Amino acid sequence: VSEAAGTTYLDRLAARSAATGTVLCLGLDPVPTALPKGFSPDVHGIERFAEQVLEAALPYAAAVKPNLSFYEAFGSAGVAAFERLRAHIPADVPVIADGKRADIDTTSARQSVAYYDALGVDAVTINPYLGQEAVLTYIERPDRFAYVLCRTSNPGAADFQALRVATHEREDGILTAPSEPLWARVAREVAGWGPGGTVGLVVGATAPAELRAVRTIAPKLPFLVPGVGAQGGSIDPVLAYGPVETDGSQWPGGGLVVNVSRGIASAALEDAAGSVSGDLQERVAAAARSWSERLPVLP
Amino acid sequence: VSEAAGTTYLDRLAARSAATGTVLCLGLDPVPTALPKGFSPDVHGIERFAEQVLEAALPYAAAVKPNLSFYEAFGSAGVAAFERLRAHIPADVPVIADGKRADIDTTSARQSVAYYDALGVDAVTINPYLGQEAVLTYIERPDRFAYVLCRTSNPGAADFQALRVATHEREDGILTAPSEPLWARVAREVAGWGPGGTVGLVVGATAPAELRAVRTIAPKLPFLVPGVGAQGGSIDPVLAYGPVETDGSQWPGGGLVVNVSRGIASAALEDAAGSVSGDLQERVAAAARSWSERLPVLP
Repeated sequence: VSEAAGTTYLDRLAARSAATGTVLCLGLDPVPTALPKGFSPDVHGIERFAEQVLEAALPYAAAVKPNLSFYEAFGSAGVAAFERLRAHIPADVPVIADGKRADIDTTSARQSVAYYDALGVDAVTINPYLGQEAVLTYIERPDRFAYVLCRTSNPGAADFQALRVATHEREDGILTAPSEPLWARVAREVAGWGPGGTVGLVVGATAPAELRAVRTIAPKLPFLVPGVGAQGGSIDPVLAYGPVETDGSQWPGGGLVVNVSRGIASAALEDAAGSVSGDLQERVAAAARSWSERLPVLP
Repeated sequence: VSEAAGTTYLDRLAARSAATGTVLCLGLDPVPTALPKGFSPDVHGIERFAEQVLEAALPYAAAVKPNLSFYEAFGSAGVAAFERLRAHIPADVPVIADGKRADIDTTSARQSVAYYDALGVDAVTINPYLGQEAVLTYIERPDRFAYVLCRTSNPGAADFQALRVATHEREDGILTAPSEPLWARVAREVAGWGPGGTVGLVVGATAPAELRAVRTIAPKLPFLVPGVGAQGGSIDPVLAYGPVETDGSQWPGGGLVVNVSRGIASAALEDAAGSVSGDLQERVAAAARSWSERLPVLP
């Protein structure tokens, strides 16, 4: 983990956001068939490419989010590559492992050990379908953090997330939730989970109206926002409604992280003819800096 | 993968169910703090224990389901242990990797490579929250199989799965789905996914009424049923409504697998004082045989 026990994830993220002036989260999702010339299309190639992207883009990133699937695709050798990559990320940069997990209680307990201890990451992504009980092991540690999937960025997200669920009433007849889409109910429920400061939401930039609505339902939950960059989501609504509603001094950046993965890594491919390592890293650094400027910490 | 391309997962499962006479699925979920004497509470201990349970119980199991979290808890060393364990499972025994995954399309494509190719399993478990698009990569291969979470076995399952969702109408006003719980809508939707024979459902034995209702909604979807054994679910409703509605000759066992993990592994602990390896395996084999007899392939 990035820092000694005693600091929270949100404190570490705020410090890094203040230092870099951005809410940009660097996605590290290397695909062996989409590497520049000079990188082998195997686990060695994706590891070396991820290292070069990390090294070049890190100065412009508030956090780093590797999606574990891209490493797991190579079995234990890929997970070992992830472990080496993680070891190269400095102590002051929060690392979010994107695995979209959750399981029944006893299993979730081993899962959180896998992410928080074996892989040593600061935060994770969690799927809400199994309920609060399946998430508790991820949100009870005061120095770690879980982003629960709320409204994802993919085209198929609406299949179930947009289904309208019934009102909820307490036993005494008081209405506690209106009829609303499932993503809204997830946001409403998650707002009551955990000890505070250890849980947030994944809300895609590709659904700006939903993102604004989720901010209203859960004014204090930090957002991880995928979907800008290659997926085409707009930035303005993310900067307007992404940060939590505080006076700004508590958490520079408002607890927001906005992930860009292919939008930065693809810069490595631009000069496909005879590119060399130095040029590649310059292009990646320029892309990361550009994204960091488009995703500033607002005053 | 267990068999050469050209056979389907359901054919392989049916052949194994016919050969063993049972729908028992052997869960292999070793916890380092719950090992018998003589096993170290680390990755070596859980690997050796899982191997001994596998060896003793395999003759009585139609399939094997390791939950990956118990291996991932040891990082790349744990995944390497899983790979060795998987290599010890004979070619005629279907292996289900329980990971409860799914992601956006390009990421899911790498995930299915991780499970089907790097780990070499026959089937997986999938979380439906991201929609059909996120699952396609798992169900398009004719020789593999995905069980989509429908009604899980854990106490928190009802948090979201039991929410009542609105009716669905086509544009011409025809009602295509009634107002029903989310788990029912998931079953109804998944029944239309994939080319046929490559997708099923996870339905917990701890919710027998829901299991019966899901069978009515999706008469042809094979079930993976967790929740008997340590979780306390009843067997009778599972045997009554678990198999698919066929004439029985097509798939002996009706595509059903019923997972027991702690209910078998805990037999290793029974004689804690001075147990030796041979006795341990005899107790595990006896427990597995007992479960296999309680979970027969019905004529």
